[in-house]
Amino acid sequence: MTEQAQGLHHVVIVGAGFGGLETTYRLAGAPVRITLIDRRNHHLFQPLLYQVATASLATSEIAWPIRYLVRDRPEVTTLFATVTGIDAERRTVLLDRGDEVGYDTLVLATGARHAYFGHDEWEPFAPGLKTLEDATTLRRRILVAFERAERETDPVRRAARMTFVIIGAGPTGVELAGTIAELAHSTLPRDFRNVDTRKARVVLIEAGQRVLAGFPDDLSAYAHKSLERIGVEVVLGQPVTDCNAEGVVYGGNRLETKTIIWAAGVRASRAAEWLGAPADRAGRLQVAPDLTVPGHPEIFAIGDTVTISAWNGQPVPGIAPAAKQEGRYVAETIKARLAGRPTAPFRYSHAGSLAQIGKRLAVIDFGRIKLRGALAWWIWGIAHIYFLIGLRHRLSVALSWLWVYARDQRAARLITQGSSKVTG
Amino acid sequence: MTEQAQGLHHVVIVGAGFGGLETTYRLAGAPVRITLIDRRNHHLFQPLLYQVATASLATSEIAWPIRYLVRDRPEVTTLFATVTGIDAERRTVLLDRGDEVGYDTLVLATGARHAYFGHDEWEPFAPGLKTLEDATTLRRRILVAFERAERETDPVRRAARMTFVIIGAGPTGVELAGTIAELAHSTLPRDFRNVDTRKARVVLIEAGQRVLAGFPDDLSAYAHKSLERIGVEVVLGQPVTDCNAEGVVYGGNRLETKTIIWAAGVRASRAAEWLGAPADRAGRLQVAPDLTVPGHPEIFAIGDTVTISAWNGQPVPGIAPAAKQEGRYVAETIKARLAGRPTAPFRYSHAGSLAQIGKRLAVIDFGRIKLRGALAWWIWGIAHIYFLIGLRHRLSVALSWLWVYARDQRAARLITQGSSKVTG
Repeated sequence: MTEQAQGLHHVVIVGAGFGGLETTYRLAGAPVRITLIDRRNHHLFQPLLYQVATASLATSEIAWPIRYLVRDRPEVTTLFATVTGIDAERRTVLLDRGDEVGYDTLVLATGARHAYFGHDEWEPFAPGLKTLEDATTLRRRILVAFERAERETDPVRRAARMTFVIIGAGPTGVELAGTIAELAHSTLPRDFRNVDTRKARVVLIEAGQRVLAGFPDDLSAYAHKSLERIGVEVVLGQPVTDCNAEGVVYGGNRLETKTIIWAAGVRASRAAEWLGAPADRAGRLQVAPDLTVPGHPEIFAIGDTVTISAWNGQPVPGIAPAAKQEGRYVAETIKARLAGRPTAPFRYSHAGSLAQIGKRLAVIDFGRIKLRGALAWWIWGIAHIYFLIGLRHRLSVALSWLWVYARDQRAARLITQGSSKVTG
Repeated sequence: MTEQAQGLHHVVIVGAGFGGLETTYRLAGAPVRITLIDRRNHHLFQPLLYQVATASLATSEIAWPIRYLVRDRPEVTTLFATVTGIDAERRTVLLDRGDEVGYDTLVLATGARHAYFGHDEWEPFAPGLKTLEDATTLRRRILVAFERAERETDPVRRAARMTFVIIGAGPTGVELAGTIAELAHSTLPRDFRNVDTRKARVVLIEAGQRVLAGFPDDLSAYAHKSLERIGVEVVLGQPVTDCNAEGVVYGGNRLETKTIIWAAGVRASRAAEWLGAPADRAGRLQVAPDLTVPGHPEIFAIGDTVTISAWNGQPVPGIAPAAKQEGRYVAETIKARLAGRPTAPFRYSHAGSLAQIGKRLAVIDFGRIKLRGALAWWIWGIAHIYFLIGLRHRLSVALSWLWVYARDQRAARLITQGSSKVTG
């Protein structure tokens, strides 16, 4: 690094998800040097992660090496490292292996993990979906369940193998339930000899009173009806009270299953802990109107690791466009500060909400305009391909979806990681 | 299953690699029912596995769900199971979970694993390449080595991180060495800030006197020269005497490295053990001229798990076309026996040998015709795309190669499985 570069204002960005990456992009041309830290080497397009879990897409179709994304930005140094803490007094980020990185401005964009509301003991039985490894783990569990059913001779145990329970009917839960139903009912039937995969049960359990609670009532009702039409059993108003190796318990009912998927809640990253800063119940940092941490104007925090009521007084939702808007705001604020210009508070502008229910079925809420069904599905698909980075990934995902759409084939039906252990 | 089907001659095939799958395909229309057993759920195109390890291809581009490949064959039942033994007297295959499958004819096509010639303690330091998991493990190790080098400040340790050692200069070793050199020298340089990946050392160590010993002398010499031209250091006539966490020892030299890849030898599956049958040093079953196990005319064994001198008195090589020819022969023999027709001994016919050295560089030995360089590379590429199964995989691999070829981009640069553990 040149001496001139060493003298530049140093922005350290932790997390290369939608928020951190957008901050990096929008700081292009600013008089700063940037260190981008992530404990993974890839940026992940999380909105399509459920398609990796359900064998529709390959891992490499929704992930990009972070270094590659910033290769043309010589002022950006990417560090593949795990943050272990923050020393705010010394303005220093602490890393694994005893390394440290000093900063002038710090941007925390560290995201969230799934959470079990005080029932962490459920995790082995009800894995969640946040990383590529989570997705390949879920994929293995779902595919192995069918394989076990094919070998099982006891009808009760076979039925348990063929029962899939998804807990939580937000967008992820709905998308998982719809896709697993299609996998069982359209993709797999011809491949099995001893079981009829069309008889698989897919049960979506939700503690609240409707599916897709973030959507308007009529779209929720449509999604509910559509799920049932493609073979998903929807259970509402029933909080789950236990998950174990035998199945799931909700509202006094016991359902025997070997495959439970957790889509019911998330917990913010440890950013609030690192700073000893106030957080809400889900561990989300409470940030000031300019997205800084109270008492630390040099520390911004954005995305799923924070909570802020900047949507006409409502909390900003935990979705990719929100994280990107926050990342853009932070970059503009840093540039304004360096130029001595004043800044306004962050305001979130909601473009819309989308959720896929199944092949040819989706709901979209653009506020005044609401769409459902096949048209919504096409818009959903085109929007997602548009938001993928680069022609290579767009072509590849389009190719995979073409095969799913036209032939019900899912190329990524691979049982990997521990696949040689067929016991369990 | 109908009673009529139950009465049919039952062929059990263990292993859905090239040999087992070809046997299944060629038995189409025969008056038999088939059980195809594999401990993985996918058929793997092993000749391109090194491209998954070097981030050029995604796992799903060279693997197919076995069930899907035989979905139109109702007489074929696929079992996702691990064979634990064979009771030849009772004509029964023993499976994990206490299951059993009886057979009238048994076909063992169980392949081989990499082997360390009595030095199994080297495996953690010098992993080999036979499965998809092996490939993603190698990929992780190779990519993490560059990441570690980027963070390392000590120049000696940094040099060790940037040194890649491949042991064994057969086709797999040559292909791995050439591709890692291209990754370091063409794909990665712009992505790193602290290290110059073009200075990475790629060292190919071979105990024998030349690379690609199975090829004619002049193609070996060409491959050797080509490897050096793309930046691979070739060390010949030096058996490795130790692999450990610090590096590799050969011929009295010690080379410090954190990334060693084993491509020096294979050992047959446990088929010979299961049968208590005679095997060679590498554990390969010695089969009769009709590929049956001596004393067991009802048990065939094919592919990398056997040794047979059916190539004008020479041993049949351990390559995909040989396994496929043997699979076809076994299917024809089974059909002939059921029809009461006589059979001839198996004879191997060698179509040619191919090896890729790097982008635009390959060698092909068709016997009388020998090719090298760019033309050989194009033929190599077209041949491999041709042998992939299905349009979906062909398009996908062609797309990936186009990006490697035209832009030096490798989409599958993902560090997964244990990627959150950045220590080590």
